[in-house]
Amino acid sequence: MTDAKPFLRALMGQAAWPPPIWLMRQAGRYLPEYRAVRARVPDFISLCTTPELAAEVTLQPIRRYGFDAAILFSDILVVPWALGQDLRFVEGEGPRLPPIRDADDLAVLDPARLEASVAPVMETVVRVRAALSSTSTTLIGFAGAPFTVACYMVEGGGSRDFATVRAMAYAQPEVFAALMETLVQATIAYLDLQIRAGAETVMLFDSWAGVLSPPLFDRHVVEPTRRIVTAIRDRHPTIPIIGFPRLASTMLPRYVATGVNGIGMDTGMDPAYAAGVVPKSIALQGNLDPMALVAGGDALHAEVDAVLAPMRGRPYIFNLGHGIVPQTNPDHVAALIAQVRASKA
Amino acid sequence: MTDAKPFLRALMGQAAWPPPIWLMRQAGRYLPEYRAVRARVPDFISLCTTPELAAEVTLQPIRRYGFDAAILFSDILVVPWALGQDLRFVEGEGPRLPPIRDADDLAVLDPARLEASVAPVMETVVRVRAALSSTSTTLIGFAGAPFTVACYMVEGGGSRDFATVRAMAYAQPEVFAALMETLVQATIAYLDLQIRAGAETVMLFDSWAGVLSPPLFDRHVVEPTRRIVTAIRDRHPTIPIIGFPRLASTMLPRYVATGVNGIGMDTGMDPAYAAGVVPKSIALQGNLDPMALVAGGDALHAEVDAVLAPMRGRPYIFNLGHGIVPQTNPDHVAALIAQVRASKA
Repeated sequence: MTDAKPFLRALMGQAAWPPPIWLMRQAGRYLPEYRAVRARVPDFISLCTTPELAAEVTLQPIRRYGFDAAILFSDILVVPWALGQDLRFVEGEGPRLPPIRDADDLAVLDPARLEASVAPVMETVVRVRAALSSTSTTLIGFAGAPFTVACYMVEGGGSRDFATVRAMAYAQPEVFAALMETLVQATIAYLDLQIRAGAETVMLFDSWAGVLSPPLFDRHVVEPTRRIVTAIRDRHPTIPIIGFPRLASTMLPRYVATGVNGIGMDTGMDPAYAAGVVPKSIALQGNLDPMALVAGGDALHAEVDAVLAPMRGRPYIFNLGHGIVPQTNPDHVAALIAQVRASKA
Repeated sequence: MTDAKPFLRALMGQAAWPPPIWLMRQAGRYLPEYRAVRARVPDFISLCTTPELAAEVTLQPIRRYGFDAAILFSDILVVPWALGQDLRFVEGEGPRLPPIRDADDLAVLDPARLEASVAPVMETVVRVRAALSSTSTTLIGFAGAPFTVACYMVEGGGSRDFATVRAMAYAQPEVFAALMETLVQATIAYLDLQIRAGAETVMLFDSWAGVLSPPLFDRHVVEPTRRIVTAIRDRHPTIPIIGFPRLASTMLPRYVATGVNGIGMDTGMDPAYAAGVVPKSIALQGNLDPMALVAGGDALHAEVDAVLAPMRGRPYIFNLGHGIVPQTNPDHVAALIAQVRASKA
């Protein structure tokens, strides 16, 4: 256990300082080397499904910064796409899908297609894991959590408050339950494939968990996540699982029941609160404001100190509370890493 | 004190059951009588600044449903508009303002204009208060809280995450502090005028409070709100003040230091958590999911019960966690009120 990589040690419940560090969207548009690769493909989906290029952009931030974890370059909407729902990314507008609004619309989803569709993603995982073999960097696989993926599938794209999916959850509970069941099973299958291809841990992104009321949060966030965690742990007992219930806020204590090994904190989460309600057997991860990273300088330094303070003495992984934004200066990322790695226990 | 209206008694810290009830955006597009009035004016600002019509739409839901509170029909962007920043409402897109991005842009704001500009709003307050004189309905005045108003002023409109204003708060702290100081003073003046015109309580809407990290939440939400509460209480010791720090989530305990008499809970707030961290001397208000009101029926009934359960035995005002949406069936509102008023202590 002491030979494990620093990132995995935190997920095993070990407190260590300085903490391991990676950043959500560390492979992204703020890096000139990413933009150069992105320019070689016609669209975002092509980048996700071209193993050579997806592996390259996954590895770029590791080479530049030596992060403790690399995260598979992919998208949370790979699962609906692999199940057969059409998916396009419109520049500057985000994803577009033909929305699922009733029982008939569910017919487009075919679980039998999944494995063949995601084969290129698995090849990316194999390539990245091989490239990381001589390093102490951990490879993170991931999927969107069922509720968040359902949000995009039902709305047909992004939304400020996902009112349509919430209305469906209340007014068409059977249709919504059927969609969620399909997604739970597909997510288990997809994560299982990633682990078999070489992912050393997996993360469930539930970006819109916090738009639900507490009763619906239990039903559509906690329970599906618990089922996925149970199924993956059954097949892969040593693979830790990270959950990121974004905007879960005061519902965080409920999320502990999912059984995850680590919990991501979004920017609005008070780290001192999370440290108080999440048992020390579970790692916390987060939650610097990405806009503080844009600002840099004294403002960044002060915000990093404020995040670190309540995390000492417990298993913890430094990260942002949301993805890096494109206008971030890469030098600020280097300064951030230096500050975190120089911080005193 | 026992003669006070039910709504005000809750804000005085008295637990009573069934709780008083009103709904955010109760005067709005879901009501046919509202749509009829709205059709008589060219734009939203004209409706806010035509006292006869603004008073009429304020009173419509009181006549139809007998709510325990009426809220002045107006908008949180009245203050920047009254200070001299141009404001338009684009149908289907929301507000548009010429953005404030540096110290020079602040020159457009002239506090000396405020009182004359908001005179029509005060006439609305006078009219509504007179119309409510024979009822037990309380008149709520309101303003946007400085941080949320600054969000729109700096972005130039709405935004999913208000990244520009957060970047300004980090990278141009002096410019942002000057803007916030202007807004704190203007908000005090504006609320003071509303109370002198007849508002029996005032509410501060901080719709975007939760996009800030904890250190910035203290600086730009808690501290400005505390200063406004102190100034208003100094001038009007018997007027209770409600704060609505939307998305404040786990930062709610910090908000208690503002000194407000009541705190609004958004839909994502767990009422049981709020009941645990907010002293019983402060009323809680909220937080039914507006989409449950759209659904109606059993789903609505179950969600209402879940909200009510942790609120018994403490001062409490029933409300939604966000505004009523236009597609709401007015009959569902009547059913909601009947359920709340029939609930057993």
